[in-house]
Amino acid sequence: MVTTKAKTIFKSDMNSDIQARLTPSINNKGHLVLGECDCYDLVKEFGTPLYALDQQYIEYMSLALVNTAKKEYPNSLICYASKAMCCKALYQLVSRLGLGVDVASGGELYTAIIAGVDPNKIYVHGNAKTVAELSECLVADVHAVVIDSLDEIETLNNLALNHGKIQGVLVRVNPGVEAHTHEYIQTAKVDSKFGFSVANGTAKQAINVVNNKQNLKLLGLHCHIGSQIFDTTAFELAVDKMTDFMVELKNNFKIEIEELNMGGGFGVIYTDEDKPLKPEIYVRNIVGKLKECIEKKSIKPPRLILEPGRSIVGEAGITLYNVTTVKEIPNVRKYIAVNGGMFENPRHALYQSKYTATLALKANEPKTETVTIAGKCCESGDILARDLKLQRAEKGDVLAVLSTGAYNYSMASNYNRNLIPPVILCNNGKAKYIVKPQTYEDLVARDEDL
Amino acid sequence: MVTTKAKTIFKSDMNSDIQARLTPSINNKGHLVLGECDCYDLVKEFGTPLYALDQQYIEYMSLALVNTAKKEYPNSLICYASKAMCCKALYQLVSRLGLGVDVASGGELYTAIIAGVDPNKIYVHGNAKTVAELSECLVADVHAVVIDSLDEIETLNNLALNHGKIQGVLVRVNPGVEAHTHEYIQTAKVDSKFGFSVANGTAKQAINVVNNKQNLKLLGLHCHIGSQIFDTTAFELAVDKMTDFMVELKNNFKIEIEELNMGGGFGVIYTDEDKPLKPEIYVRNIVGKLKECIEKKSIKPPRLILEPGRSIVGEAGITLYNVTTVKEIPNVRKYIAVNGGMFENPRHALYQSKYTATLALKANEPKTETVTIAGKCCESGDILARDLKLQRAEKGDVLAVLSTGAYNYSMASNYNRNLIPPVILCNNGKAKYIVKPQTYEDLVARDEDL
Repeated sequence: MVTTKAKTIFKSDMNSDIQARLTPSINNKGHLVLGECDCYDLVKEFGTPLYALDQQYIEYMSLALVNTAKKEYPNSLICYASKAMCCKALYQLVSRLGLGVDVASGGELYTAIIAGVDPNKIYVHGNAKTVAELSECLVADVHAVVIDSLDEIETLNNLALNHGKIQGVLVRVNPGVEAHTHEYIQTAKVDSKFGFSVANGTAKQAINVVNNKQNLKLLGLHCHIGSQIFDTTAFELAVDKMTDFMVELKNNFKIEIEELNMGGGFGVIYTDEDKPLKPEIYVRNIVGKLKECIEKKSIKPPRLILEPGRSIVGEAGITLYNVTTVKEIPNVRKYIAVNGGMFENPRHALYQSKYTATLALKANEPKTETVTIAGKCCESGDILARDLKLQRAEKGDVLAVLSTGAYNYSMASNYNRNLIPPVILCNNGKAKYIVKPQTYEDLVARDEDL
Repeated sequence: MVTTKAKTIFKSDMNSDIQARLTPSINNKGHLVLGECDCYDLVKEFGTPLYALDQQYIEYMSLALVNTAKKEYPNSLICYASKAMCCKALYQLVSRLGLGVDVASGGELYTAIIAGVDPNKIYVHGNAKTVAELSECLVADVHAVVIDSLDEIETLNNLALNHGKIQGVLVRVNPGVEAHTHEYIQTAKVDSKFGFSVANGTAKQAINVVNNKQNLKLLGLHCHIGSQIFDTTAFELAVDKMTDFMVELKNNFKIEIEELNMGGGFGVIYTDEDKPLKPEIYVRNIVGKLKECIEKKSIKPPRLILEPGRSIVGEAGITLYNVTTVKEIPNVRKYIAVNGGMFENPRHALYQSKYTATLALKANEPKTETVTIAGKCCESGDILARDLKLQRAEKGDVLAVLSTGAYNYSMASNYNRNLIPPVILCNNGKAKYIVKPQTYEDLVARDEDL
């Protein structure tokens, strides 16, 4: 990764947004470069709008997490949280790097299985898994279903009985720690559709129910405290709470937990306000706290599972657009409209998420303007970024929005019957489709006549 | 419509939410009924999650609008705003009822054309139409492209020249009226990605540019003041502003506008707080104001176009779900999780939209509980309705969310690789697919191996 950066970077004070990142970089033509592919060539070959992923970045992040975990705590598994970005090739890539995967639906499980993911490295999440999905888990022989409700315990046990199997399960619990970016709260009253609260005793009750089911094997505990977390304090606190709970289970029920899944939530850079830790630090601090708790509380060391998604693919991705119109409303706002929008990136509309953008072929020009990037959907709220610093844009320019690798393609819709852009993977100057373009024929493929 | 209601209604004080509506109704088994189809049978035949539309409601709303317009102002056209819900069968249905359509993308245009919509009744909207889309308009021979920017004027004129055609256009202007529900504002500083402001002179400038293009024929003006509007005051004010502008164009450039397109925005009932006017009243009041302005300002009567979308299909639709889990967090909240979520209805996540829901097979039971409906996506924000009154729900119950005909299927995604539910059309006790179910194979159809 560092090699790539060194090869292609062009020193410039103009675009510090880019310099703070491992990818993309800027070449001596002032063009944005991803996976050593010049965005000029990418747009020429694949058109716009286009999702592009840097393979080396995904490899770098994956291996940083995996290797740190292996070194610091060998009994561990890093699982890719595939809800961030799910397609066959990405499953194949992360599997090759030694990661397991977590899936959050039957569709993700199906994709993982046909991509060739080892079922023994699959964890299945979801607060409302359907009976069909739970059956699919049994057919696929997944390592663990992460139990989320009392209803699910009954359903899964009955299904496992019918399948003549013992299904491994984790139980999702709420340790009473909620974290986001630099803030976290501790609460006894967890208001979440997910899991069982430790504080109010429902977690203990659920585990006892699971433990008494003949066709379920309790493997361990799962928790997930939040997303875009830039500090490990909350993770360490959660490890402390979870290991306290392990002690409680041991004392109350003589249950010794084999697996502790601490979920994901490692942050990425969307704008220069975001300062995530290095992947190694997240792992090292969580492991450090776990080892300390194991020793202090005399618990049997569990297998540690972490589930990063956004941090593996988020910064690996950019979206390339064509600037369709430039519209200045004097004394109000300058709109730069592109051939994408909330149909391919709904995160601003959903969460008022902030992004960094740059003109991909004018990346070394100074960002002299403050603009709002509008999408093409027939809706006023279809905005990709508001009050954003950008180079002076003209119709026909190529706009790149950065850090779109996670929760963009995965959340894309055909709103207004716009086509979902294809996804390419860029590596060593070569790019290939990993998700092919949609066509108009695809849009009507399921439509019936009146 | 009224006949259906009379046939199937079961008098009850328990479910006033339903009684205020034309559809659905409740039968003597206490089951929800749509288009004379018992939801029990619908779920048995089609499964859940399921979008269901009442054909008679769509016909009733369409004809109420069309017939009132014909009677009060014969030189008029009601166009279905297809972004609300787009598929072949719906285009065929509204076309049969005499409506034109407005489309907001190449994908909607493609669908309309292969559905057999008369291109002479198609209006094409969009703030950022691509060159490809504008070419498609020329190939399809659409009646009018609604011009949204100066950039577009140049592009479209050049394309029309290359195609050897004269393309009819409207120009989208901002009259300085913005409306939503019971509120409206008048503003000279319109902050919108759409159109040209009348107040700052850019509208006049754009029209002058269009008028001087050899391959464009200026047909008229378009405006759209907002959505979910429950009062015609803002529409009447907009008519006044638009006709003032017509006078200005006549005086300045000797341009007499042939078409005045006042857009859409008629409200629907989501909850009992919503009190939309009858469709006839919207049309009558807008037409009344237009006639008054025509006479007072001595302008040539333009063809009037209105573009309702939500009001035609919104209340026609319900979504049926299976209750997957019931989870009560003592002193916090009761979650009812269903096998749908933000992937098939993102409106709560996007706009905090409110809905009415009922247990479809217990519709006459009293709504004794306050619950939050959670979707199945692996995200805390995946909520369909918060603090909603509902009958006591159990795992396996069928939940119906009402008024989901608009902006649900059209905004649906495969987030978490969940499958987009099929759409059925219900009429006279019969139901048929108008959009067939997705399959897991569809999810990976465009995925390539690494």
